[in-house]
Amino acid sequence: MSLPKPPIAKLEKAFGYQFNNVERRQRALTHRSAAAKHNERLEFLGDAVLGLVIAEALFERFPTADEGNLSRMRAMIVCGRSLAKLAQKFELGRFIELGPGERKSGGQRRESILADTVEALLGAVYLESDLETCKNLVLQWFAPELDKLQPGKVHKDPKTRLQEFLQGRQLALPEYQVVETTGQAHNQQFVVSCLVELLGDPVIGRGTSRRKAEQQAAELVLAAIEEQPKK
Amino acid sequence: MSLPKPPIAKLEKAFGYQFNNVERRQRALTHRSAAAKHNERLEFLGDAVLGLVIAEALFERFPTADEGNLSRMRAMIVCGRSLAKLAQKFELGRFIELGPGERKSGGQRRESILADTVEALLGAVYLESDLETCKNLVLQWFAPELDKLQPGKVHKDPKTRLQEFLQGRQLALPEYQVVETTGQAHNQQFVVSCLVELLGDPVIGRGTSRRKAEQQAAELVLAAIEEQPKK
Repeated sequence: MSLPKPPIAKLEKAFGYQFNNVERRQRALTHRSAAAKHNERLEFLGDAVLGLVIAEALFERFPTADEGNLSRMRAMIVCGRSLAKLAQKFELGRFIELGPGERKSGGQRRESILADTVEALLGAVYLESDLETCKNLVLQWFAPELDKLQPGKVHKDPKTRLQEFLQGRQLALPEYQVVETTGQAHNQQFVVSCLVELLGDPVIGRGTSRRKAEQQAAELVLAAIEEQPKK
Repeated sequence: MSLPKPPIAKLEKAFGYQFNNVERRQRALTHRSAAAKHNERLEFLGDAVLGLVIAEALFERFPTADEGNLSRMRAMIVCGRSLAKLAQKFELGRFIELGPGERKSGGQRRESILADTVEALLGAVYLESDLETCKNLVLQWFAPELDKLQPGKVHKDPKTRLQEFLQGRQLALPEYQVVETTGQAHNQQFVVSCLVELLGDPVIGRGTSRRKAEQQAAELVLAAIEEQPKK
């Protein structure tokens, strides 16, 4: 059984904005599995708002970072994982309307659903307010992440970092291999193995694209290398 | 020999905006091959502005289009080709600062350079004005394209359209094959062949990713099918 919903005011407080249009707020909280009036259009809009707000914030904060760095930093900040973390902080899962199947399979905890709902809520804020309001909201959400950013080395993607780490030690490059793909066109899952000399066994990564699976595998290899006792 | 530059006022008239910050306008017109103070950061910002403006315009114009449709329509409007077309209308090529090598190899006519410069100029407009000003400008640029849009069938990507066309006639699905890849990491070129029963020979597509090369091949196959004499 699911717990009763806490009052919506609690969500709005954590989220940082009180909606005027209650109907639209509800729509932003409705997953496509729950109703025909779901949040995907709002998510489309919110994603674009988020993209601009973060682009501008990075542009201002890092006046000497080049475009590649800005792009990488933005990808880090607005990725599914970081949006889902935010959603968890808002305890958003308990407010999302899901169909019975999604609810049973734990959809309210799924990263993609949480992240999409944050974007949909932002889209709803934008429609009833303006870019300035969205800016204040988003910058407040991401203040700790933005403060931690350092353009340059840290924000390369895991595959690049792994490659540079290995090259720095004159070790062979990692070998990636797709070991399994499941699902159809828009719902594929890739399983990729990554083998490096330093670790005995290949490490497995998963993702909705080959690239994402490889990135995850590289990330896990980097984590495993860090955990190894230093020689 | 290149022609002397026409006065910048001519560009601003075609573009639809008169810049206050002349230095930033110049920076937006400067390709990375020409100077260290080039336009890539402005392009990063302008791309995000453009994304939001078009997302919002489509959201408003097509209140019943689903997210997939909105995304496809946006991809059509803001693609390199359509931005480059716009740049040609502005005669932008004659105002872009390029390094001598790029100039010699015709960089001022290259689609990607033209498209990026349009985005950089929009980024520069945004920095000295606001989203509203950018909105008016962009919607004026794309008015004909926006008016032509019809959500739904027309805006599917070429691979989807080709597949549906073949399925509708109970023909086998197209076979795509990568026949060549050249270049390194950030500058790869893919050559893909696409074979369908209706055409005797495979059709070749090129692009900076496998997906793009396949899309181009599919587009060319569709064009070739249309040109065939009706049986």
